[in-house]
Amino acid sequence: MLTERQCRRLCVVLVRTRNPLNIGAAARAMSNFGFDQLRVVQPYELAFREARSAVGAAELLKTSQQYENVTDTVADCSLVIGTSAIGNRLPEQPIRTLQAGAKLISNRLRSGRVALLFGSEKTGLSNEDLSHCHWLLHIPTLPGHLSMNLGQAVAVTLYELMRQNRPTKSKPNLNLATAADLERLTQLLLQAATVSGFVSTQSFYSSEQKLRRLMRRLHPQAEDGEILLGILRQILWKLDRDKG
Amino acid sequence: MLTERQCRRLCVVLVRTRNPLNIGAAARAMSNFGFDQLRVVQPYELAFREARSAVGAAELLKTSQQYENVTDTVADCSLVIGTSAIGNRLPEQPIRTLQAGAKLISNRLRSGRVALLFGSEKTGLSNEDLSHCHWLLHIPTLPGHLSMNLGQAVAVTLYELMRQNRPTKSKPNLNLATAADLERLTQLLLQAATVSGFVSTQSFYSSEQKLRRLMRRLHPQAEDGEILLGILRQILWKLDRDKG
Repeated sequence: MLTERQCRRLCVVLVRTRNPLNIGAAARAMSNFGFDQLRVVQPYELAFREARSAVGAAELLKTSQQYENVTDTVADCSLVIGTSAIGNRLPEQPIRTLQAGAKLISNRLRSGRVALLFGSEKTGLSNEDLSHCHWLLHIPTLPGHLSMNLGQAVAVTLYELMRQNRPTKSKPNLNLATAADLERLTQLLLQAATVSGFVSTQSFYSSEQKLRRLMRRLHPQAEDGEILLGILRQILWKLDRDKG
Repeated sequence: MLTERQCRRLCVVLVRTRNPLNIGAAARAMSNFGFDQLRVVQPYELAFREARSAVGAAELLKTSQQYENVTDTVADCSLVIGTSAIGNRLPEQPIRTLQAGAKLISNRLRSGRVALLFGSEKTGLSNEDLSHCHWLLHIPTLPGHLSMNLGQAVAVTLYELMRQNRPTKSKPNLNLATAADLERLTQLLLQAATVSGFVSTQSFYSSEQKLRRLMRRLHPQAEDGEILLGILRQILWKLDRDKG
């Protein structure tokens, strides 16, 4: 059973949502299942707080936080999950079904914050958005059919999270690096790879996404992250000094 | 696993639904999870077939059947279930949680039709409606909170039905770096940390062990290991060249 405090650690992140009704529907589902941390990234309409379908979820919408980009939104989270319809694109990250994924999310909520990203109604999450994710969550719907409605996808996902209320076996308590640490590692590694000539300026942008995904797969513990940051900083300092 | 034929035996019945958008949302969720028998009782707007949110579920709406009362709607079903928010009313029928109820519904679908009744957004199912039901299905939401949005309640219910009837998938197949790769990574990282001055010659031996353990904790996939090896080799080449 997730405690109230653990539920508070789950951040539902709506990325570039176009329809305020969907923000309202997401808020309502959160309220139904006991979650209250809503974050929105570049919502299409700033009037989202008025979303009318959020009957009674007004408080939740009032305290929701607005961000300009995914990096800042997930900075304090140690696990970042993208939800995906898995259409034509072949995703770069591992995909887990909702059932299996919810178990991992529940476990992680015992120790840190988890961000759950939902993309826009039209285009879903971009490759840039997805590169921030450790893995992708897939609600098993019929292949070849429509993607799910946004509000319904949020409801089904949160339902599955609450459903798994049997106590799970305790695992060694991992103190994993937060998304902000992972992003710092990504940027330093990218810088080192560029300065040394491994990455060309032409491929800088695609390399950034590749290395970001790589770093999310590695996902070091907080302490190991610190050591790697220290080594990378020292390498960059040395490369810079020797150059002069 | 429910066969297509068994899925056809489930009738989603919307009773006196007021908002056409909700009919559309219900149809969309049905389409997502592979159900296609929609029946509506006295819908508030006859224009429900145009319900716009049912992207791609047009066929399902076109073939939906309209009834004047619950009696006729469920006449050919051998099990009739009401969904209920269980508010102030004390229901006369046994209540089952969604998880337990879905199991019974799945079993019944192997032999006959099942009707699943959803009431209007405002008042839910009336006592008259409920009197047609063998038992009631309850989605466990937070007590004292709002009832669920109609489209979301349909989605969550159908998800649970499909969930119980599909084999869980195995974990993504990881091709992890071999011990030899890990050792190569350890040695190159150690070298870079030494050349850059992060590791002093005095602490070289203990640092080697620390970085070896760190690299085992990270345990990259084989492909990621290759990329990291490439970056480290390039950094070392650059550090060596600049020195001279």
